[in-house]
Amino acid sequence: MFLSRIGSQTIVFRHPPAIEATATIVGKKEAAGPYGSCFDMVIDDNYWGEESWEKTESKMLREAAKMAAQRAGHPLNAYNYFLAGDLLNQIISANFAARELSIPFIGLYGACSTFVEGLGLGGIIIDGGFAERLLVGSSSHHESAERQYRAPVELGIQRKVTAQWTVTGAAGIAVTRQRPGPCLTKVTFGKVVDMGIKSADEMGAAMAPAAVDTIIQHFIDTGTQPDDYDLILTGDLASVGKAIVLEMAKQRGYDLSKNYEDCGAIIYDQSTQKVQTGGSGCGCVAVMASGHFLPEMIKGTYKRMLVAATGALLSPTSSQQGNSIPGIAHAVTIERL
Amino acid sequence: MFLSRIGSQTIVFRHPPAIEATATIVGKKEAAGPYGSCFDMVIDDNYWGEESWEKTESKMLREAAKMAAQRAGHPLNAYNYFLAGDLLNQIISANFAARELSIPFIGLYGACSTFVEGLGLGGIIIDGGFAERLLVGSSSHHESAERQYRAPVELGIQRKVTAQWTVTGAAGIAVTRQRPGPCLTKVTFGKVVDMGIKSADEMGAAMAPAAVDTIIQHFIDTGTQPDDYDLILTGDLASVGKAIVLEMAKQRGYDLSKNYEDCGAIIYDQSTQKVQTGGSGCGCVAVMASGHFLPEMIKGTYKRMLVAATGALLSPTSSQQGNSIPGIAHAVTIERL
Repeated sequence: MFLSRIGSQTIVFRHPPAIEATATIVGKKEAAGPYGSCFDMVIDDNYWGEESWEKTESKMLREAAKMAAQRAGHPLNAYNYFLAGDLLNQIISANFAARELSIPFIGLYGACSTFVEGLGLGGIIIDGGFAERLLVGSSSHHESAERQYRAPVELGIQRKVTAQWTVTGAAGIAVTRQRPGPCLTKVTFGKVVDMGIKSADEMGAAMAPAAVDTIIQHFIDTGTQPDDYDLILTGDLASVGKAIVLEMAKQRGYDLSKNYEDCGAIIYDQSTQKVQTGGSGCGCVAVMASGHFLPEMIKGTYKRMLVAATGALLSPTSSQQGNSIPGIAHAVTIERL
Repeated sequence: MFLSRIGSQTIVFRHPPAIEATATIVGKKEAAGPYGSCFDMVIDDNYWGEESWEKTESKMLREAAKMAAQRAGHPLNAYNYFLAGDLLNQIISANFAARELSIPFIGLYGACSTFVEGLGLGGIIIDGGFAERLLVGSSSHHESAERQYRAPVELGIQRKVTAQWTVTGAAGIAVTRQRPGPCLTKVTFGKVVDMGIKSADEMGAAMAPAAVDTIIQHFIDTGTQPDDYDLILTGDLASVGKAIVLEMAKQRGYDLSKNYEDCGAIIYDQSTQKVQTGGSGCGCVAVMASGHFLPEMIKGTYKRMLVAATGALLSPTSSQQGNSIPGIAHAVTIERL
């Protein structure tokens, strides 16, 4: 059902699609963090036998998608679509993964919001009766992202205090019409919000306003309040962005202080892992939601959660031309029905 | 209706969404070509008052989307989604256009297949009952594409004989539940196909196998033959790629010689416009389909056409690492019902 009144951005699924299986692959640093034991596979080093970090990232995404398919118990050709994206120019991680998977491919770009963009579109495709099952995936890789967006890590440039550490991680999720499994019940696609941040070391501040915009829109459209969720989760705002979300939401009359968390703020141990304000990247919310929060929901810890993935639409080209960094956030409600 | 037998890649819409309006904006070179009079607006020079070609491209996409909305007779806030993408890293043309339009945004990356990827997903969203109306758009710009993918035009590097000329053009399409208007009746999302082409000057050859794969899959899934269409149109293979499509299809038992055309092969006058094999870019099929073929369908020239947009998933990064260029094609059947 589409909430068709003017201004609504939210879709309520009629027959909520189910998440049949998830799979996560991370790097050593992520495995050494507080949630390290939640992830399905840890690669030995950030090359994983490949010649370049970009090739490694694509392999991680491909293998995570294959693992999710296998766990769900279906061969790859039983999946009607592969919806995926990543941070690299021309989403090469996803393109090359799709080439190997040989599943009809729908390429997405939403920066770090891609994971939820894929879940939302996947939900639409399944609920609309256009597919039996599909795979959603996204990935990021610390070294491939740094050299594209900021500077090659070999330069050893000192990281700013507001910087975030791009997560080396990939997740695949198998979505199907058939329950059981946590279900996608609602999705809110966000608008692009730009508050004028220009520094690639202030991603959290660039994305936080978009997160607040989409989360509050979701509340308004669905007639819910923060208390109606066991957990409200954002993607990778890290500690600075998280604080901004809490403050901005409060100013708009929503108290998120009791049940709000951000994946970027918790994936690393900030006291020992030297990540400045926390984690970022398409892989951050993907591996935290798939590796920790969805399994916890299956165990019964959560009944209903709102996951808002935020993307900083950062581009070296547009930044060099003096443009600010627009942000976007897409949100899905996931429920144990 | 989803054709759910194993191997099918095609969706048949139950209530075919209608194309309510189109709008096109092109550069002077495109306006000087054989179809120049079909386009709605021609920009004075390739800057259009902006400081950079990237900003110009984004403005073209934004204005084309606004023009399509206006022609359909609805304010921007009556559109539930804006589905768009382009060739630039991080799809900045689309991101910045979406910021100004302030419509919930679904960012796509399918290289030059983006236009049909957007129409296909837009069709799913409308037919599934998830939106009343939405805007689809894509763009490309000769100078912004050349400096990102090949070399800055200021260098004056001699173009290879197999090269294509990136179209400076943007199109917006308004899709709705309400007829009249040409209708989207079927969509086939393609697989990534890679035959090993490595040169950024041989896009047509890189994309042609994907075009053939998707077009024949569409025939098989829908039980149709080439003769069932008044026109079979590909995106931007240009003259070399077009010849490869004809030959490869023939080898697989399909004669496309009677009703097949390629937008890249016809958008310029190849005898006088110095474009080597023809046009390319996200904007090529977008402006040709929106500016010429859809209006011709409304006039009655065509009753049913199959539009397959092809994308070369070209990346300077992956090319520098020795990778070949994967191709993809998505196809939609558009009919006058």
